[in-house]
Amino acid sequence: MSGISDDTNIPPASSVDIDMQHVDALRLAIAQGDGTGLRRLLSGEHPAELADRFEQLSADERGLLVELAPDVISPSLLAELEDEVVEDILPLLGPKQISKAMEELDSDDAIQIFEELPAHRRAEVLADMSDAPRREIEDGFAFDEETAGRLMQREFVAAPEFWSVQKTIERMRLRHQQGGDNLPDKFFDIYVIDAHFHPLGYIPLSTLMRSGKDQILKDIMASNLTVIEPDMDQEDVAYLFEKFDLISAPVLDADGRLSGMITVDDIVEIIQDEHTEDMLALAGVNEAGLVDTVWSTVGARAPWLFVNLLTAIGASFVIAQFQAEIEQLVALAVLLPIVASMGGNTGTQALTVAIRALATRDLTTANSARVIRREALAAIVNGLVFAIVLGAITLLWFGQPKLALVIASALVFNMFCAGLAGILVPLGLKRVGADPAVSSSVFVTTVTDVIGFLAFLGLASIFLL
Amino acid sequence: MSGISDDTNIPPASSVDIDMQHVDALRLAIAQGDGTGLRRLLSGEHPAELADRFEQLSADERGLLVELAPDVISPSLLAELEDEVVEDILPLLGPKQISKAMEELDSDDAIQIFEELPAHRRAEVLADMSDAPRREIEDGFAFDEETAGRLMQREFVAAPEFWSVQKTIERMRLRHQQGGDNLPDKFFDIYVIDAHFHPLGYIPLSTLMRSGKDQILKDIMASNLTVIEPDMDQEDVAYLFEKFDLISAPVLDADGRLSGMITVDDIVEIIQDEHTEDMLALAGVNEAGLVDTVWSTVGARAPWLFVNLLTAIGASFVIAQFQAEIEQLVALAVLLPIVASMGGNTGTQALTVAIRALATRDLTTANSARVIRREALAAIVNGLVFAIVLGAITLLWFGQPKLALVIASALVFNMFCAGLAGILVPLGLKRVGADPAVSSSVFVTTVTDVIGFLAFLGLASIFLL
Repeated sequence: MSGISDDTNIPPASSVDIDMQHVDALRLAIAQGDGTGLRRLLSGEHPAELADRFEQLSADERGLLVELAPDVISPSLLAELEDEVVEDILPLLGPKQISKAMEELDSDDAIQIFEELPAHRRAEVLADMSDAPRREIEDGFAFDEETAGRLMQREFVAAPEFWSVQKTIERMRLRHQQGGDNLPDKFFDIYVIDAHFHPLGYIPLSTLMRSGKDQILKDIMASNLTVIEPDMDQEDVAYLFEKFDLISAPVLDADGRLSGMITVDDIVEIIQDEHTEDMLALAGVNEAGLVDTVWSTVGARAPWLFVNLLTAIGASFVIAQFQAEIEQLVALAVLLPIVASMGGNTGTQALTVAIRALATRDLTTANSARVIRREALAAIVNGLVFAIVLGAITLLWFGQPKLALVIASALVFNMFCAGLAGILVPLGLKRVGADPAVSSSVFVTTVTDVIGFLAFLGLASIFLL
Repeated sequence: MSGISDDTNIPPASSVDIDMQHVDALRLAIAQGDGTGLRRLLSGEHPAELADRFEQLSADERGLLVELAPDVISPSLLAELEDEVVEDILPLLGPKQISKAMEELDSDDAIQIFEELPAHRRAEVLADMSDAPRREIEDGFAFDEETAGRLMQREFVAAPEFWSVQKTIERMRLRHQQGGDNLPDKFFDIYVIDAHFHPLGYIPLSTLMRSGKDQILKDIMASNLTVIEPDMDQEDVAYLFEKFDLISAPVLDADGRLSGMITVDDIVEIIQDEHTEDMLALAGVNEAGLVDTVWSTVGARAPWLFVNLLTAIGASFVIAQFQAEIEQLVALAVLLPIVASMGGNTGTQALTVAIRALATRDLTTANSARVIRREALAAIVNGLVFAIVLGAITLLWFGQPKLALVIASALVFNMFCAGLAGILVPLGLKRVGADPAVSSSVFVTTVTDVIGFLAFLGLASIFLL
């Protein structure tokens, strides 16, 4: 590895983990009230690296740090921190520092910080900003959360179709040299526009690089432009980026004029956030963050635990209807959880596959009939296989052929219902406009518990006793 | 929206779904043996769009389509199709068509197609390729699956530190005009190298664009370059891209020389794949694809259902030890599933948060002690809260204060164990080098079932009977 500059980030196998030695050094400097040391520890490196370490500190430590050296909270560090951490430290910063950071950042990053400000401080911070960036924040904030309008940055590069490659490059240099550079920090495509600021196509910078300097933009542009409307849900935007391998995409206003740009680095973040949302929703967790305390963890988990308690008691009521039967044949109580558990698992499997397929758009209203059929059939096949196994085990264990038949029949029926519920519940939630991941697993396991208990105990009371 | 060229992809709210009318048109053309119609239907549009429709066809329909019009399987369409679909249609294509497609594509896409070829056809396809691209495939294939070496493309742009902006741009034009353009299809950064081909820094194209033409690369390059080693796991590569908002990153060989490049569009795909893997593993599904048949679905679900059956029977054995107690007090059988279900839910919540935090590197060995403590405390707090609720309900329902106390105590204990298992099982799997998502939920629910049954029935036998 010789010959590589010392600044190069060469990650050895384990360096993707956070470096706790640096965090300990930070803690020490905070404890010693050593502002100079803090400034030294929090400078020079990539802000993402600093953000990772900063986030490992407790809320109290962060507070002390900001008090000792408020200037280490640079605009780029603010842009890298998790939302909940930003929310925590904004109250410690003066309005001037916040507005200055927002002016310096691209408008998409600035809006993300603005979102974390409590409502009563927003006017104060806006008042400190100069006109142009303030208007950008106000415009962006007018769009709903989690839409393209919120996500986009106002800075982009557009050029008229009749410009040459040479002229386009020269104009960019000029815009930069004239100071007050309003080029985006990073951009990847140039949007080609007509006289009305309507997009006609795009030119990846790499195409511009390899094109002859006298070529006209119109002749080298790609016309299969994917444009985004500002009220589009961010999940749909992410889907288009993935599908078309986009690096950036223009956002149009209501008149079809270019009004902003979304870049792939924001999309990567959204994909991660949506994943986290889906997984936590499936597990019945309301929210989880890096900086959770015991109390926020309790609060995030309790609501769905409560719903689960109610549905579990509901399922117990089913069992309670068969107390006489259980007293007569206690083997029923022994075997009961198996039927419910197999149904629950079958349902969870189908549900997870469905949620994932909905997220990746592999499952749509167009092909749902085929997927429903597949899930139902697969559940029946597996139900029959495991009914034979469980029936045989029951026969060996309790020596009662009728009991074996009853549990086998209940298992097939419950697994069939579980497979169907696993696909129909998320599709139904989607159809009524709800998030298919939220609450679907409680629905499904309630179905499988109730049907499992009812089928097994019901069949037993008819055929065994 | 007037004024926008007709080629522009303007996705109305619902267009993110696959257009089934086009799929039906394809089906009709296949049924009629209409090769010309197929060519018309499968041309002109973005290959990602065509791939989506192609994937909606059944395996038989795809086979007929390729027979009727093999030329519609363009290199760019092959690059867009899901791996399992590529695997399906490669047997239908001649070696010449495959090798030609692989020569035309960037080497990372070519390797992905090569991976899907059965081993006995690989030599044949390689033999048809010209030397340079063949060597690229052979070199890339020498790296393990799911590593940076497999992922990278051999095409990238590097320039010596002493070149000027002007000269760099002119050289790219020249490389392009001289034909045999070996520039990557798309690139976003130029890597600045020393005389030994070691990277010194990088210049985003947008920086090159705004820099004066006489500026020297060394003076405008960013030196905080993140470099990738070829044997790095693709998940770690994706993590670095996310953390540092990378658009591309250079891959070095063993001597620290530039040998390839990874771009963000591949990373977006990896993030999606890894996420699907995690969710399915948690739900106990071995694999799921768009084109699954009933049989492959059964096969993907059966193994973990079988494991679940065994653990459920194990838990039933616990109940079986208390048959005498249940006969005496059948309320035990009625209430039994509640304790197990609450424990199962608590465990699943903790487990999912842990799996997600491990995937996003928010949970590391460095901070695991804090997270374990948090999970244990949160489980105890929630356990106490729900023990009071469930105890009160039990008292009202059965009128037995001792039964209420027993179930409340069992619930606290089981939820505490569940919270601990939910965090310790994935951390333990990770420590022994296993995927923490695979099999962890079976472990956790087994723990919560067994402990729940044992605690409730055990306490009941001691204090009630």
